[in-house]
Amino acid sequence: MALIVQKFGGSSVADADRIRHVAELITNTYKRGNDVVVVLSAQGDTTDDLLEKAYEINPSASAREMDMLLATGEQQSIALMAMAIDALGYPAVSLTGWQVGLETNSNYGVARIKRVSGTRIREELDRRRIVLVAGFQGINKFGDQTTLGRGGSDTTAVALAVALKADLCQIYTDVDGVYTADPRKVPNARKMDEITFDEMLELASLGAQVLHNRSVEMAKRYNMNLEVLSSFTGEPGTIVKEAVKQVEKTYISGVASDKNIARLALVGLEDTPGTAFKVFNLLAREKINVDIILQSIGRSDTKDISFTVNSSVADRAYKVLMENKDQLGCDHIDISQDVSKVSVVGGGMVDNPGVAATMFEALYEAHINIRMISTSEIKVSVLINKDDTEKAVAAIHDKFFA
Amino acid sequence: MALIVQKFGGSSVADADRIRHVAELITNTYKRGNDVVVVLSAQGDTTDDLLEKAYEINPSASAREMDMLLATGEQQSIALMAMAIDALGYPAVSLTGWQVGLETNSNYGVARIKRVSGTRIREELDRRRIVLVAGFQGINKFGDQTTLGRGGSDTTAVALAVALKADLCQIYTDVDGVYTADPRKVPNARKMDEITFDEMLELASLGAQVLHNRSVEMAKRYNMNLEVLSSFTGEPGTIVKEAVKQVEKTYISGVASDKNIARLALVGLEDTPGTAFKVFNLLAREKINVDIILQSIGRSDTKDISFTVNSSVADRAYKVLMENKDQLGCDHIDISQDVSKVSVVGGGMVDNPGVAATMFEALYEAHINIRMISTSEIKVSVLINKDDTEKAVAAIHDKFFA
Repeated sequence: MALIVQKFGGSSVADADRIRHVAELITNTYKRGNDVVVVLSAQGDTTDDLLEKAYEINPSASAREMDMLLATGEQQSIALMAMAIDALGYPAVSLTGWQVGLETNSNYGVARIKRVSGTRIREELDRRRIVLVAGFQGINKFGDQTTLGRGGSDTTAVALAVALKADLCQIYTDVDGVYTADPRKVPNARKMDEITFDEMLELASLGAQVLHNRSVEMAKRYNMNLEVLSSFTGEPGTIVKEAVKQVEKTYISGVASDKNIARLALVGLEDTPGTAFKVFNLLAREKINVDIILQSIGRSDTKDISFTVNSSVADRAYKVLMENKDQLGCDHIDISQDVSKVSVVGGGMVDNPGVAATMFEALYEAHINIRMISTSEIKVSVLINKDDTEKAVAAIHDKFFA
Repeated sequence: MALIVQKFGGSSVADADRIRHVAELITNTYKRGNDVVVVLSAQGDTTDDLLEKAYEINPSASAREMDMLLATGEQQSIALMAMAIDALGYPAVSLTGWQVGLETNSNYGVARIKRVSGTRIREELDRRRIVLVAGFQGINKFGDQTTLGRGGSDTTAVALAVALKADLCQIYTDVDGVYTADPRKVPNARKMDEITFDEMLELASLGAQVLHNRSVEMAKRYNMNLEVLSSFTGEPGTIVKEAVKQVEKTYISGVASDKNIARLALVGLEDTPGTAFKVFNLLAREKINVDIILQSIGRSDTKDISFTVNSSVADRAYKVLMENKDQLGCDHIDISQDVSKVSVVGGGMVDNPGVAATMFEALYEAHINIRMISTSEIKVSVLINKDDTEKAVAAIHDKFFA
């Protein structure tokens, strides 16, 4: 008997059939004697439909009113799920963000959680009820509803699990766990039973898109074990935790790729102090996040700086740099959108210096050219041509795992 | 400069165009220097769509969860209206039932208002904001959301107007006021400038369907002036108030009809004490509301009891009576669905004993047979054949008003 927090996303509650199926999964956990708290997202397209309605009325609607509107999506999901569980003959109660006392700051649309009361949830658990909580939403000190932004429901689930001292926080998704590579693209990809928080963080930021970084960071900070598993099968998935049993000596935990990036290069910059500061300060003021940064000595007394950004902000980054080209004192600025990033991640990498070399060998054997390299303690990333992405991931994966 | 509460129903906010139109009406009131509080219903079909979703999942869903689900409809309306008003350049803020402190009892689905705090609304009015409040919903002592049932948004508007000591409560509808008869059916029908609460109550219960009785009763209890007016034109409508200037000596305020009724008759009941009690106790236990009741002496030592009920419960009433026919000791039971009720209403009737006679004269001249008669202090109702309804209303109306 344990206290388990489960989270189901929008596709898991998209229609009556899916809701009934998830109700079965939830009651199966409850039937085994567990206390169950469930966090739900809005149904399938609900959020998009609401955004469209809002846009038609006011394309620049205030964030407060947008949160008031969007919070209704999750509220509908929890009520419908309570009805489905009731139809199966089990006791359930739905609660909104403000009802469970999930307090946030006032950054409407991207609110951060400040504290979770959880009193009401504990009362309902004491009555042996399954508690359904609206994800993605909270309340600020003015008594106004807020939403948490991207990954909000995952974050709600982890925050509740921490506040309630749950034994496990299960994140149900449309995949059955975390793989050594994308299983749709790499036939030999293998599901991992366990992975560390740090490895999961690197994989998430590399485009593996199984869990949102924000929720993994919170789980790591409070040492809350997560499980990623499939809402279709309900089979055991991958446990994300602090330390992993190294039975197999898998110093590499996965290979990930990200195609949504662009590379910018400032060529022929004056080789004087402060150049890098000027460049990245400009971008920071425009709120453009930069990923890999590389600086190299150029011809004669100049240097080149190249970096990657998310594709969606590439044009904006290019524009702001071009507008300040003379002030930066650079020769010309390149932008290339036909690149992708491929990375290997693994906590064991620190003690195995050959990882980068093995990765480069795999790429060489596959005749893939490396355009940039970046390394951290538990990750090696390379920039390659976008067309080579799948080939590169498969080659690297099989080099390490086959 | 005044404090005005305005209520707009579901059809008034059905789509982006209607919302924009209503935003204009609201800001026009605000621009004249008034403090404005607006109560909104859910958009057009939203409530029906949500009911359908719920029914698909659980045909007998709990009332608490149904309220959790349905309350989202009004919340969407207020957020969208705030966005529309913002787009016109005026300050607005949306608030849910729990945010304005509208406390109800715990009869989910049909909750009664216990008190209204109004603190938050006053704060927002002090900031010169237009306040948009979700109608139909409140919060009970457990911190759970409730809905008020039929006529809920009208009731919310009146309750807020009373709590805030508003100068006027305007109920916007799809008609431009209260008429002496249904203007779609009686060409000579006349819009009234003023009408008393009591007259309005009789008209509403007679199927005029302009205002819900519940809201009129509350307005009467707290002497809050109401105005019924059109959300299409925004022109002055009909004021509903305690006492009306009797400039025109209109002792009849209107003619109303109701086709949604059925008549049941228990024929040949034993003429012993307690018979009526047995009959209506049976119906009360089935929660069947009875309207007109008539008892007459039958043949020899028996009596007949006939009464009317809403069509929707007629079959159920018939069934429960038939099941207890022997116990009631009655000869046979008739049910007739081809009837309608036509009534004249007017506070001045008390001092004008000729009203009933004039009404019967009009029906006689139109060759319409009267099947039952019922009178109160300010009302005379007759039961006639359903086919004669329009002819009867026109004949009575023209007799009094032409």
